[in-house]
Order: sequence, then C-alpha cells, then structure tokens
Amino acid sequence: MDIMNQISGSYEHKVQYYETDQMGIVHHSNYIRWFEEARTDLMDKIGFGYSKMEQSGILLPVLAASAEYKHPAQYGEIVRIIPRVTEFTGVKLTVSYVVENAVSGERKATGERKATGETRHGFVNQKMSPVRLKRDYPEIYQIFSELLESGKR
Amino acid sequence: MDIMNQISGSYEHKVQYYETDQMGIVHHSNYIRWFEEARTDLMDKIGFGYSKMEQSGILLPVLAASAEYKHPAQYGEIVRIIPRVTEFTGVKLTVSYVVENAVSGERKATGERKATGETRHGFVNQKMSPVRLKRDYPEIYQIFSELLESGKR
Amino acid sequence: MDIMNQISGSYEHKVQYYETDQMGIVHHSNYIRWFEEARTDLMDKIGFGYSKMEQSGILLPVLAASAEYKHPAQYGEIVRIIPRVTEFTGVKLTVSYVVENAVSGERKATGERKATGETRHGFVNQKMSPVRLKRDYPEIYQIFSELLESGKR
Amino acid sequence: MDIMNQISGSYEHKVQYYETDQMGIVHHSNYIRWFEEARTDLMDKIGFGYSKMEQSGILLPVLAASAEYKHPAQYGEIVRIIPRVTEFTGVKLTVSYVVENAVSGERKATGERKATGETRHGFVNQKMSPVRLKRDYPEIYQIFSELLESGKR
Repeated sequence: MDIMNQISGSYEHKVQYYETDQMGIVHHSNYIRWFEEARTDLMDKIGFGYSKMEQSGILLPVLAASAEYKHPAQYGEIVRIIPRVTEFTGVKLTVSYVVENAVSGERKATGERKATGETRHGFVNQKMSPVRLKRDYPEIYQIFSELLESGKR
Repeated sequence: MDIMNQISGSYEHKVQYYETDQMGIVHHSNYIRWFEEARTDLMDKIGFGYSKMEQSGILLPVLAASAEYKHPAQYGEIVRIIPRVTEFTGVKLTVSYVVENAVSGERKATGERKATGETRHGFVNQKMSPVRLKRDYPEIYQIFSELLESGKR
Repeated sequence: MDIMNQISGSYEHKVQYYETDQMGIVHHSNYIRWFEEARTDLMDKIGFGYSKMEQSGILLPVLAASAEYKHPAQYGEIVRIIPRVTEFTGVKLTVSYVVENAVSGERKATGERKATGETRHGFVNQKMSPVRLKRDYPEIYQIFSELLESGKR
Repeated sequence: MDIMNQISGSYEHKVQYYETDQMGIVHHSNYIRWFEEARTDLMDKIGFGYSKMEQSGILLPVLAASAEYKHPAQYGEIVRIIPRVTEFTGVKLTVSYVVENAVSGERKATGERKATGETRHGFVNQKMSPVRLKRDYPEIYQIFSELLESGKR
C-alpha cells in the first residue's frame, strides 16, 4: 500500500550523557527505552500513536522484551533504531529492532550494529482484557496488517 | 507528639550501577529521585503514603525541586537521605533533604555530606485544583502539622 | 559449600513512584534495572561486588537481557527479585531472575509472580578483551562455580 | 559575534512514554535531564561538546540544579528547551532554562511554559581540581564569554 511504502520506521536518537554508566557506555537498560521510542514513533507516523490509542480505550502493554548487545553505544553518538512489525495476529503484536550508528552532522555513519531486540505486546482495554481489533477496531486492524506486510519486505 | 518522635524519616538507598554516569559518579538527576524515595517513605511511615493519598483523591505534585551537590556519591556506597518538613500551610508543603554516606555492612559510615535539596508541593485533587486540608481532610492536616513541628526540632 | 548455602540471593526492592508510567504500572524497562540490582547484590554477598571486580580490572558487561512480564508491579508494592546463576563457563555467565510480590510491613505477601528474565554476560578486561577466570583469577572462578552449583539446587 | 548570533540554543525533545508517571504527566526528575540535553546540545553547537571537553581533560560537573514546574508536560507533546548562559567566570558557569510547548507536525505550538530551571557548574580536571580556562584554555574561555554575551541579549 502506498502510504506504508512512504513510512520509514527509522528513528534517530542522540545518545545522552545521563544514559551512560561508569563503564563509559550506554547502560543496557536504555536500549529497551529506545525500542519504545522507535515503536511509538512508528505508531505516530501511521496515525495511531499511543495517545490516540489510549483515547480509543486501547492499551498496548509490553508482554516481553529482549535485547542482544553487539557494540556498546557511547556518548556523542547518534543511533538509528529501525523497528519492524514481525508478527500481528489482531490480538498480539511483535516488533523487532535494529540499533545502528547513524550519520549526523560532521560524523560519518559507520552503520555499526549496536544491538538488536524484540518486544511482544497485547492489545487490551482499560480493564486489561484483550480486545479483538479485527472485530472491534477494523481500521486499526488494517493498519497493523499493512505494517506487517511492509515489515516482511 | 509521641508517634512523631518515633518516626525516623531517615531512609537508606544503595547506589545502583545504573545510577552512575561516565564521569564515574551518580548522575545528578538521581538525587531528585532519591528525595522522592525518602519523602514517600516518610509519608508511608506516618500512615499516609502516596497510594493512600491517591485513593483519597489527593495528589501532591512537585512545584519545585532543587539540589546542591557537595561530594559525588559513587557506586558501592549506601547513602542516607534525611527528609524534613520545613513548611506546611495546609495547601503547600516544603520538604528539605540531606544526603550523606551511611554505615552498611563492613563499610564504616563517614557521614560525608553528599548533597542537600528541597522540594515544594501543593495538595490538589484529581482535577488539579488546590484542596484545603484543614477543612476537607483535618486528619491529614493534623499529621503534617505534627511533621512540621517535629521537623523544627 | 557452606558459605553458598548461607547466601540468599533474594533481594527486595520497594517500587518507587518514579518507576511508574501513565498506564499506572511500573515501566517495563525498570525490571531490567531490578535484575541488575539483584545481580550486583548477589555478587556483593559472595564478596565480589562490581566495585571489587572493577578494581581487579574485570568488567562484566551485559551481552543480552530479556524479560517476560506476567503481572504488572505497581506503586506501593515491594517486590522480591531472586537471581540464580544458570550458566558459568569461566568466560560467560548467565543469570536468570524471578520477580514476585514480597511481604512487607502490614501488607501480606501474595508471592504473585510479576516477571521472569535472564541476562547473559562476558568477563572482560578494561580493553574489553575476554578474560579466562580459571587461569587468571582462580579464586573468582571458584566462587562462580559454586554459585552455579547452588543455583542448580 | 557572528557565529554566536547564528547559534540557536533552542532544543526540541519529544516526550517519551517512559518519562511519564502514574499521575499521567512527565515525572519531574526528567526536566533535570532535559536541561542536560539542551546544555550539551548547545555545547555541541559551539564546537565544544562534552566528548571533546572530556578529551581535553576537562569535566563540567553539576554543582547545583533547580527546576520550577508551571504546567506539566504530557506524553504526546514536543517541548522546546531554551538554555541561556547567565554567568561565566572562567571557573564557574551558570545556565538557565525555559521549557515550553513546541510546534511539531500537525500539532500547533501553544508556547505554554512548562518549567524553568537553572544549573550551576564548575570546570575541573580529571582529578576534580578547578581549571582556570582563561589561562589554560583561552580558546574555550573565549567561546563561553561570547555565549554569556549572547545570553544577555
């Protein structure tokens, strides 16, 4: 679909000093937060950001999260986080992520892979009961189906 | 009052690795969080923790926060945060804090002062309108009045 | 070994207000930090805390981390994090975690399981080259071997 | 000076979900981090980022930090943080901050003031002894002097 092709899930994050630890690298817990940054940014871009979802009464809690660390990101770097929908059942959603060094300003992008990861989610209502998007929110169902398709390419 | 004399606002916090930054010290933003830890702990002890307050429909947002850093806290330390109610008007609350090195296990307490700080708060309802504790919640008013008195000693 | 039997890896953490998010539950990234709290606490107890390791020139970066979320931890709870060494090769280390509701004060412990997780680590020197504990630090090798054994029980 | 006039200290930050707390607003400790984001961004722009400073052997620890909260920032907002050098003695540095709602995408900028704040810093070497920029790093001294001048306008 046209709109999906135009959407770049690619998201840039400037490493912050408060994200480092005394090993001189980004503390590993922050990658889990970067995944969220890229995931919510993607959802904003498809017109269905968290704010809008919560207004619709839908929450998307995290059921599982994982990260594998390849090369530590460091202060002074800008990283690109690329989220990709790898599973969508109408009830559950899986997003995978690649974190890599990004070009910015005078620095050259090395594209060095920093980390990969994955988060799994369930669509629930305010009472934390599962919602079935296909039946109750067909429009949202359609969007995520297309994201899944575009993620496969 | 007896119960107030028994309440020690003193609160211990073990410095965590994820709280350090690449300068090899605790990132300064964490002290603001430690103030909250000590403040909420104090309120738990007086039988009026944040959970209970929120159930009563009262929120206590932070209007201002400040910290002065004396000696950097480091990983491996345990710090003691001592909160003290320094102002209470029935509508507003001011709490001041001292952070110092605390004894723990085999380590000797140096008592070295790490930082001092202050937070200012307003009592509001769910709609963020000020509540007057003296009229609407006399029991809570009484507790904070006593905390103020004990803070003066 | 006697000393290992006496060591309880069990670690308690009071949920902090700053750890919650607007869903009214603990933000999922914090569990990764709690794993670190329990892991470093365990290492302190066996006499080989991170501070001591770093003084010996050994770092233990995280190679991978994962968490599965069962029941959201909430503000007002105290959780117990139970770390267990599940793999130790002399070069790599795997620790698994269970997070559950803990007893505290007047609250009854439900023991409700909040989350499980795992972190994988490598022992490296300051230059991020792998160190072989068995050859270079036999004393440390011994301790982790015993932790692995006690983790199996 | 020309270059200073061209430098906009204005820095935009997209509020992240992990920055919210259960009051449904951004946790107050994050503003202290946003101040750092804007301050380090400003220093990057003048060609003297933290990375470069640390390479030169200069650290700029925070001696004091304060924030006054006017209107809570919320998830879904983009905020603009405007740092301004308000004091520079060659040994100490004071930066003040304004945080306000910023325009972004389809949302209209309200310019609503979220918070104001200030941080105070000292220039020190790796041993945490004060450095005198005017004598030892005249080039850096010049840059901050100009920032102070431009901050007055």
